[in-house]
Amino acid sequence: MSGDPTLLQQLALQMEVDQLNAAYAAALDEKRFEDWPGFFVEDASYTVQARENFDRGLPLALIALESRGMMKDRVYGVTQTIYHGPYYMRHVVSPAIVTTGEADEISAQANYAVFRTKPGGASEVYNVGRYIDTLVRTDSGLRFKSRLCVYDSEMILNSLIYPV
Amino acid sequence: MSGDPTLLQQLALQMEVDQLNAAYAAALDEKRFEDWPGFFVEDASYTVQARENFDRGLPLALIALESRGMMKDRVYGVTQTIYHGPYYMRHVVSPAIVTTGEADEISAQANYAVFRTKPGGASEVYNVGRYIDTLVRTDSGLRFKSRLCVYDSEMILNSLIYPV
Amino acid sequence: MSGDPTLLQQLALQMEVDQLNAAYAAALDEKRFEDWPGFFVEDASYTVQARENFDRGLPLALIALESRGMMKDRVYGVTQTIYHGPYYMRHVVSPAIVTTGEADEISAQANYAVFRTKPGGASEVYNVGRYIDTLVRTDSGLRFKSRLCVYDSEMILNSLIYPV
Repeated sequence: MSGDPTLLQQLALQMEVDQLNAAYAAALDEKRFEDWPGFFVEDASYTVQARENFDRGLPLALIALESRGMMKDRVYGVTQTIYHGPYYMRHVVSPAIVTTGEADEISAQANYAVFRTKPGGASEVYNVGRYIDTLVRTDSGLRFKSRLCVYDSEMILNSLIYPV
Repeated sequence: MSGDPTLLQQLALQMEVDQLNAAYAAALDEKRFEDWPGFFVEDASYTVQARENFDRGLPLALIALESRGMMKDRVYGVTQTIYHGPYYMRHVVSPAIVTTGEADEISAQANYAVFRTKPGGASEVYNVGRYIDTLVRTDSGLRFKSRLCVYDSEMILNSLIYPV
Repeated sequence: MSGDPTLLQQLALQMEVDQLNAAYAAALDEKRFEDWPGFFVEDASYTVQARENFDRGLPLALIALESRGMMKDRVYGVTQTIYHGPYYMRHVVSPAIVTTGEADEISAQANYAVFRTKPGGASEVYNVGRYIDTLVRTDSGLRFKSRLCVYDSEMILNSLIYPV
């Protein structure tokens, strides 16, 4: 087993995907929103969709961005123009399921829970769901070609401001 | 260190256990209940027990199934015969502690949180606890010989319908 | 790639850190508080600080212990002298970001969620935040030289009794 490159590569890929998820979460939770588009390739998509719509194959999504430029616009909107009550986010993400081992495109899924804390308030469950990702390898490491956040939490989403 | 088969095997086993937990969670969260018994060997046990009883060594458990056949019955009951309000589950599971490295039987533990979302409602903490598992290696990969779910959450459990 | 010791060491270190976090969580969740100081080296620090203070560089912390001796005192206080309503804790911790690979000192961060369950009550989100750790290698494996728990949850903390 010790000389098996496939196993080592599989272990390394698993670690890379989990580390990407952790770094992504850290950027959002620490409100480094300007770093957020950098986790994606230029023509990547970012979608936040209710599970009910996803399960039925319906297209309606809460957020649907189709390039890094649109993500930068979103960040500008969120940090500069949208009036909203401040809150902290905290992501807890399970180890990912890396479903594809192709050299040029990797599929991954991971369950997430995002907790929200408003100033002076108790932490609450904000948004739980599943990341469905396509990743590609770039010179700077793995990046998202697409990230689809399918969320269970229909209710509280009225006030979703920041990306999850 | 590079040629150490033990380390590599340990890394591989850790990944396998975490992947099994992730696949198990995905099956339940996506309501593929018919896949659930397949995570167990034929004569496996599945038990859901309150922590209070577990800590005192008392036998009473909320669910106690002693074969894959009983699990299939449970799935049939849950999906076909029990009348209950629908809800989504979402599992977030920590990396497991793999405590035994014996060739033929593996022990593992992992903390889990399951969130429940009812239609139109906010997500809430549903059941948190610890998986205490015995695993065996089969031709199809690791499978549970026993999974014991020890839950902290005494209260909300009146309405536990699906396996956790 | 198969003969690359650096990759293997990196994988091993990642596993070790995640396992340390899991063992730490298990000790607290199972109320083995007397084991808790053993996760630290003798002159280690343990700090629990609100995110607001941490972000502003303010020193005020909810708990600030500066040696294993102080931790043992804390455990004694918590288990023997403080009168408080009992509750269960359950930690769910994400895979850590291991930021430094130096031989003698390792930096790591991980997001955590701690759930609290009072007897007969529903589980609730108790404390969410981020572990910011410095680790050193000892004869007994990795140990914390410092663990800083930066929590989002300002509100419920009035009643923080046990370490997180």
